[in-house]
Amino acid sequence: MNELHYLFNPRSIAVIGASDKPASIGARTLENLFDHSRYDGSIYLVSATRSELRGQRCYASIVDVPQTPDVAIVVIPAQSAVQVLQECAEKGVKFAVVLSSGFGEAGEQGQRLEAQIKQISAQSGMRIYGPNCPGACNINARLGMTFSPSFPHDLRPGPLGIATQGGGLGRNLMQAMERGIGVALWSSSGNEADLQVADFIDYMADAPDIKVILTLVEGIKDGAKFVAALQKAARNGKPVVALKVGRSEYGQRAAASHTASITGAAEVNSAALKQLGVIEVDDIDELIDVGWLLNRHMPDGRSDIAIYCSSGGAAALTADIVGQRGVRLTEFAPATVERLAALLPGYAAIGNPVDTTTAVLSNEQLMDSTLLAVCSDPGVALVLLPVTIDYGTTTEKMAQAVSRVQKESPVPILPIWMSDRNGKAFSMYAEDGIVPAKSIGKAVKAVRRWMDYGKWRTQTHPQHWKPWPTLGRAAPQGATPLSLSEGNAKSWLAENGLPVPRSALATSAQEAVREAAAIGFPVVAKVSSATLTHKSDIGGVFVNLRDAGAVHEAWNTIMENVHRHAPGAKVDGLLIEEMLPAGGVEVLIGVSRDPVFGHVITFGLGGIYVEVFKDVTRRLLPLQREEATAMLGEIRSSALLEGVRGGPSADVAALIDVLMKVSDFVGRHADAIDEIDLNPVWVGPKGEGAYVLDAVIVGRQSDDEAARR
Amino acid sequence: MNELHYLFNPRSIAVIGASDKPASIGARTLENLFDHSRYDGSIYLVSATRSELRGQRCYASIVDVPQTPDVAIVVIPAQSAVQVLQECAEKGVKFAVVLSSGFGEAGEQGQRLEAQIKQISAQSGMRIYGPNCPGACNINARLGMTFSPSFPHDLRPGPLGIATQGGGLGRNLMQAMERGIGVALWSSSGNEADLQVADFIDYMADAPDIKVILTLVEGIKDGAKFVAALQKAARNGKPVVALKVGRSEYGQRAAASHTASITGAAEVNSAALKQLGVIEVDDIDELIDVGWLLNRHMPDGRSDIAIYCSSGGAAALTADIVGQRGVRLTEFAPATVERLAALLPGYAAIGNPVDTTTAVLSNEQLMDSTLLAVCSDPGVALVLLPVTIDYGTTTEKMAQAVSRVQKESPVPILPIWMSDRNGKAFSMYAEDGIVPAKSIGKAVKAVRRWMDYGKWRTQTHPQHWKPWPTLGRAAPQGATPLSLSEGNAKSWLAENGLPVPRSALATSAQEAVREAAAIGFPVVAKVSSATLTHKSDIGGVFVNLRDAGAVHEAWNTIMENVHRHAPGAKVDGLLIEEMLPAGGVEVLIGVSRDPVFGHVITFGLGGIYVEVFKDVTRRLLPLQREEATAMLGEIRSSALLEGVRGGPSADVAALIDVLMKVSDFVGRHADAIDEIDLNPVWVGPKGEGAYVLDAVIVGRQSDDEAARR
Repeated sequence: MNELHYLFNPRSIAVIGASDKPASIGARTLENLFDHSRYDGSIYLVSATRSELRGQRCYASIVDVPQTPDVAIVVIPAQSAVQVLQECAEKGVKFAVVLSSGFGEAGEQGQRLEAQIKQISAQSGMRIYGPNCPGACNINARLGMTFSPSFPHDLRPGPLGIATQGGGLGRNLMQAMERGIGVALWSSSGNEADLQVADFIDYMADAPDIKVILTLVEGIKDGAKFVAALQKAARNGKPVVALKVGRSEYGQRAAASHTASITGAAEVNSAALKQLGVIEVDDIDELIDVGWLLNRHMPDGRSDIAIYCSSGGAAALTADIVGQRGVRLTEFAPATVERLAALLPGYAAIGNPVDTTTAVLSNEQLMDSTLLAVCSDPGVALVLLPVTIDYGTTTEKMAQAVSRVQKESPVPILPIWMSDRNGKAFSMYAEDGIVPAKSIGKAVKAVRRWMDYGKWRTQTHPQHWKPWPTLGRAAPQGATPLSLSEGNAKSWLAENGLPVPRSALATSAQEAVREAAAIGFPVVAKVSSATLTHKSDIGGVFVNLRDAGAVHEAWNTIMENVHRHAPGAKVDGLLIEEMLPAGGVEVLIGVSRDPVFGHVITFGLGGIYVEVFKDVTRRLLPLQREEATAMLGEIRSSALLEGVRGGPSADVAALIDVLMKVSDFVGRHADAIDEIDLNPVWVGPKGEGAYVLDAVIVGRQSDDEAARR
Repeated sequence: MNELHYLFNPRSIAVIGASDKPASIGARTLENLFDHSRYDGSIYLVSATRSELRGQRCYASIVDVPQTPDVAIVVIPAQSAVQVLQECAEKGVKFAVVLSSGFGEAGEQGQRLEAQIKQISAQSGMRIYGPNCPGACNINARLGMTFSPSFPHDLRPGPLGIATQGGGLGRNLMQAMERGIGVALWSSSGNEADLQVADFIDYMADAPDIKVILTLVEGIKDGAKFVAALQKAARNGKPVVALKVGRSEYGQRAAASHTASITGAAEVNSAALKQLGVIEVDDIDELIDVGWLLNRHMPDGRSDIAIYCSSGGAAALTADIVGQRGVRLTEFAPATVERLAALLPGYAAIGNPVDTTTAVLSNEQLMDSTLLAVCSDPGVALVLLPVTIDYGTTTEKMAQAVSRVQKESPVPILPIWMSDRNGKAFSMYAEDGIVPAKSIGKAVKAVRRWMDYGKWRTQTHPQHWKPWPTLGRAAPQGATPLSLSEGNAKSWLAENGLPVPRSALATSAQEAVREAAAIGFPVVAKVSSATLTHKSDIGGVFVNLRDAGAVHEAWNTIMENVHRHAPGAKVDGLLIEEMLPAGGVEVLIGVSRDPVFGHVITFGLGGIYVEVFKDVTRRLLPLQREEATAMLGEIRSSALLEGVRGGPSADVAALIDVLMKVSDFVGRHADAIDEIDLNPVWVGPKGEGAYVLDAVIVGRQSDDEAARR
């Protein structure tokens, strides 16, 4: 049983701050519990001022309550709540649901109070839900531990678990019930003094009545916990659809000020969600679109759909948007074409999109038979049904036909309610659970995500996932960053099995010539310094040095250039390196330490592709080999690795090996590594390997290995 | 007066095919005219079977009608319509509105009939509207020349002109009246036997009661007419918002089969619309979003907005989406901050986004004063107001406050109705013309487009536009394409003032050496042949030839390579060319002939940027110098022209000159040029010019100049 089971399904509840003052949060909480819930357990009322309410005895304190309730709902002002929570903890209450505001969100004083209740929770083991939240609505159990005056309208139970932080956006999702959405449970974690969104995702991943989890996250307090919850959901086969605020600077700033939590880098958040199979959406209504589709039918990896419509224009427009999103239209089997041709008038379009023309509007049987024919085509994974206009009765008959056909076919039919007139037919779809999308664009976006999830699901095996080790998430305390020189960085990499060109550090011109001869001409000469990062910009790099004279000259020129352009730089000498042949592809591999998710690896093609087109892909570390392989195909310029215009294809196997070795390297030295920048990594033609040509490592002094360099 | 004035405002109307058979199109047309219009002119009924209808005399034929009506509405079957239209033309009827179907959309027989009515129109000058369309709804004049049973519900007059082809999508737009949209006129051009969407845009550009034009186009029959209408709208200061079907292959195919017209290349359509100041949208509801915003307030080029919200979560989410779309949040003036700080509780967020907290929900006056403070900030061009939840009465009071403030401030307040519950407050916004957006994403998209239009409008002077000459839209009949050799292409370009490297054609190794010496070493040698396009792929190009020996050797090797890899190629010799110094940027300039819009110029950085990232920009020709300049900044890799990592900036002036000269060149030889591909064009550092290094021209034999090469 999940450890939060009795939070959402308590055997007994105490309300601390019970009241009958109209519109007070105390009174509203009682109304929701007594009048709008169907709760069988005991409810104890605690009030400092009343001895009786609703004909039931009130206790002066939780201490006096004869039983130890599973849940105490706290609705008294923040100031007094601390003492009361201490009493609850001492009493052995399992969960305190703190609806009161005036904590972390309300200035310094509130932050002090929040720190105190955190401590109570940590010391006693009593879990705290909130504070500053509207509470929890267990719709399937018909239990509202909430002061929201809207709870009486939350009447549609169902398979969706909704986990939000804020109350406003969560309630917005609850109002999607009007579109036909059935909700199992809505948790709203508020300030997250103790329990976080991640805890509720974890609960929902276990809950047998929840099929799909929707979450709206402003800030992630504990990255490791969040990842673990998502891993559990994936293992239990439950899709998670997420909207993460903080994808732009404005959003990051606003979310940080709203929830006082770190939002992390948007690209890293998105990469992490994707890696964990979470479906990330762009807007709040899209949570519903995708979540409900997943509930209706779990996608099986197929990606061809049909469009069925009685308006030729809408059929064409929908097909257009389908094509723009990279969704494919099924080429119907001959039997389907034959059937449609036999049933529909000659001027109807029986290809895909199907334009039935208005013929079906006056002939329900025709609608049934043709729509069923489309659903029965073996290549159709889903049918989009744009409802262009609300025609009243005609549109209602159409809705009935769709419901009938849907009962006979497992292929989901997704109506698109295009009109701004929400007539009776709209409600008919909603009541039958055939939740309409609100625009063609939104519908197609949802279908694309549904399909992508289907592909992910059929290709990924979360059962094989290892628990996520949260590599070096927090930098070790007290350690200060330390940049390694290129030579030191490369030899550390080489010790860890990473391929680097043969090289040697020369501390004089004579030594440089000697080392070059030992390595074999041509060579590259680079200034060696831990403080200079853009070595070539100041004339610190010479390539293609073909003889001793050239190496000697390079020494003089580089030293002169450094002296002139970076007079204070600490120079160790020149790094003399083997020069790799022309014809390779240059890529970039980076590692950074995200404040939420820990070490993240970035891969892309070098130079301008990264700077201008931001053509990179990312993964949380450690990397699985399949993921490393997938990364290569995810960048838009991946064609360059396959060889352009008849050129040779790159040594992809060697590149994957480098990625895996970087992952292992970071795994071994997690605390010591803040940042790695391997740019470029040279990838030769097939069979010629891949080599790290330049390397920057920013480490931590506290680590012995980093420090010794 | 626009030539279509009496089509939409007829002084008299004849209905041919008048009927009272329930639900027939004849009866419905009469109901709309007599019962649901407020029409003062004369209506004549023509019926082959009835002598009287609605107590009014029926004529057996249009010939018998005592007056010549401005408009004849034809609702009889296609077969009989041809004869009747001939009679109408002879009678002198100005406009025939043909509602009947069974023409071009209905197979070969229908296409024959459509050809016949086209001919009647062309010969007589009588304009035909339709066929196969639901008719025209002049809402401001309350005149429905339509059989649509929905016309009685089209009750909200207003400032929008809607021009569609299909009926279904047009009617969908009409149902946006539920969201508060007021429509002046909806024209639906159907099969466009004569009058096209472009004619109606032209009419709307002149109509004094129309402020904004919305159009939904599946296919453009006459590109020149379409461009001219859009130019007129721009000159008259009327924004046009367009949804063009055919942006994906599926859409192109479906639209072509639906309307039997050419859709053209999506990129070219989008470029043409953008160039003409048309706001292109992605979905049908977005037409309304942007159109209504433009009607409410014409943007002035400012691009900073405010977010005002009572939910912190929704404020953060909206800010996030605003940031993702590149819209900016105003930094409030000190006076605004002071005012908000004085009014709102301490825990509210008074930056931008403004999170009032729920304090305003119970205090209307507070809402008025704080919202007005935000609207009054000098840097705020628009206020986004996310309405997260439908709270019933509370939400209604909020809507009233918004209406009050909107009356006091010219700054548009755009509510975002986020809930799926469309309660009374929703209608209150609609009734007050404060049309809510349907999702945060859609709202922000609309705002971004509104702003971009504002910028375009303040920076562009359509008054200075020349009439569009439709350069070589159709290829000359009977002419066959002709590829020019690189040498011929370049000398034709050179004659037209385009800079090419010095070069000469050598027909022997000896001549090659001689010419190289005359040009000056180093040189480039390329095989010259009109039939070989990828010369370097077969070893037909050698660069950096430093002496006579190298040139001689190049001759032999190239001839051998061509012999081996392209044995059938017709070879003229070797092109010996001046070699330009290293350090330039390589760009691509192309011209193609679009079937709808004629010659289009494409510009981008060469090589992989074009192939992988499709990083190009386009314009219809001829090009204005400002446009050429703008093109350089529009590609994502434009930073490369400004110099990367301290490198020199490119000779941008020379590049603009090349673009203008290409435009002039095409202008002079429009019929003779199908395609130009200048790739690469070498752009040197500032002051060093730009040169066409390689050129492919596909011309037309019928043109003397092309033929002589």
